[in-house]
Amino acid sequence: MRVRYAETDQMGIVYHANYLIWMEVARVDYCRSIGFVYKDMESLDGVLLAVVEANCRYLSPSRFDDEITIRISLLEANTRMVRFGYDMEISGEGRKIARGETKHLFLGRDLRPVRLPEKYRRMFRIVESAQ
Amino acid sequence: MRVRYAETDQMGIVYHANYLIWMEVARVDYCRSIGFVYKDMESLDGVLLAVVEANCRYLSPSRFDDEITIRISLLEANTRMVRFGYDMEISGEGRKIARGETKHLFLGRDLRPVRLPEKYRRMFRIVESAQ
Amino acid sequence: MRVRYAETDQMGIVYHANYLIWMEVARVDYCRSIGFVYKDMESLDGVLLAVVEANCRYLSPSRFDDEITIRISLLEANTRMVRFGYDMEISGEGRKIARGETKHLFLGRDLRPVRLPEKYRRMFRIVESAQ
Amino acid sequence: MRVRYAETDQMGIVYHANYLIWMEVARVDYCRSIGFVYKDMESLDGVLLAVVEANCRYLSPSRFDDEITIRISLLEANTRMVRFGYDMEISGEGRKIARGETKHLFLGRDLRPVRLPEKYRRMFRIVESAQ
Repeated sequence: MRVRYAETDQMGIVYHANYLIWMEVARVDYCRSIGFVYKDMESLDGVLLAVVEANCRYLSPSRFDDEITIRISLLEANTRMVRFGYDMEISGEGRKIARGETKHLFLGRDLRPVRLPEKYRRMFRIVESAQ
Repeated sequence: MRVRYAETDQMGIVYHANYLIWMEVARVDYCRSIGFVYKDMESLDGVLLAVVEANCRYLSPSRFDDEITIRISLLEANTRMVRFGYDMEISGEGRKIARGETKHLFLGRDLRPVRLPEKYRRMFRIVESAQ
Repeated sequence: MRVRYAETDQMGIVYHANYLIWMEVARVDYCRSIGFVYKDMESLDGVLLAVVEANCRYLSPSRFDDEITIRISLLEANTRMVRFGYDMEISGEGRKIARGETKHLFLGRDLRPVRLPEKYRRMFRIVESAQ
Repeated sequence: MRVRYAETDQMGIVYHANYLIWMEVARVDYCRSIGFVYKDMESLDGVLLAVVEANCRYLSPSRFDDEITIRISLLEANTRMVRFGYDMEISGEGRKIARGETKHLFLGRDLRPVRLPEKYRRMFRIVESAQ
């Protein structure tokens, strides 16, 4: 992922709110990698992954045109919620730029909590008895 | 309206795409000023004002914390579409920063064209016979 | 502050990263309220308030055209850093929508840490001996 | 380029201002394809490609997770300015979503017009005598 000009601010570095957008891009890719298309979960099954908590620690600045690598990991998951961790660095260089975490609830289209449908549980490595 | 830090880019001035967002803010205020709440038109009547054309000429830069005044004018309206013009300047100073125009179609929730409901026509100064 | 259409996403609610932008708007207003213009601190004194940590808990959704009130408080300040807390709610209604926190370092134009210039210390209620 | 969740609005489609950001991404790629890195032109030669005019016609909606292809073409270039055209469509599908145009001036770091340095002229196919 390359930093867009639009993502910089007058400090000459990436505006901090954009890191939350990058985490979202990483989540969508993660879903694809574990076997489903997030868009379909939302449109076909009516299950939304709503952000209920987000945090980010900024370790060093990133700049326009930098190539960013985001390593995402599943920290916790049950049929109600899921938590992800993110490590962001400048590709190649290996310089860490930020570390973040997001927590999500599974919601229905009416924005009320729902339990994650069975077919997705295995992908999130949710063991039934653990609920 | 004050320029937000987030709206600047590394040139130290406002990133150009934000002017389109400001035009949207001006439109919503305009609707309120002629007698209705845009949000209600969308949620109660299911009529969306979709942008089908937008353009902007940038005359001089605007910067973080500048106070912006936008003058909006209704350039054309019929039961199918509406066109707005925008003049943007630094408040007080009077320095012109941009001039823009947007064209909109009235759409239903399914994103298909609809005719503007009767009750809104007078507000947009649409004379029936002109259709 | 009114929620902009641009700030919503396809869930029909405000996209979560925008809350960080609102916190920034609140910070700039806060600086003005305690006696200085943030823009001037940056341009005249070359001191930047760089975000090094941000977090937000989303309590209930906010929507297009909602009027938002943000209560900001100074949680901690010394000559090196400052921490703010934010409580966000729907104006009038009083419904809490989010609670956040940001931590900032004072940086010079070269993005290296600096000590906050004397004249700003009193405004941030920094007591010298506390350093 | 995949549509980000952050780029959608409550209509369920991409918010129109984002198309201008996509055009910028396409420009940066274009520069790379004709032989230089835009970032370097800005940081090493102090030449900025400032947008002075932008317009976009929206032909059909694009949605979250759509893969977008942008075809960019150099419409006009001389030592003072350059104009680009953009055709945007859903990859594979071939459905046109938008057509746009931007006009840029070459500016120095002080935001005053400059002439494009010699070494870049050939890349923009600028014939000297045409000035």
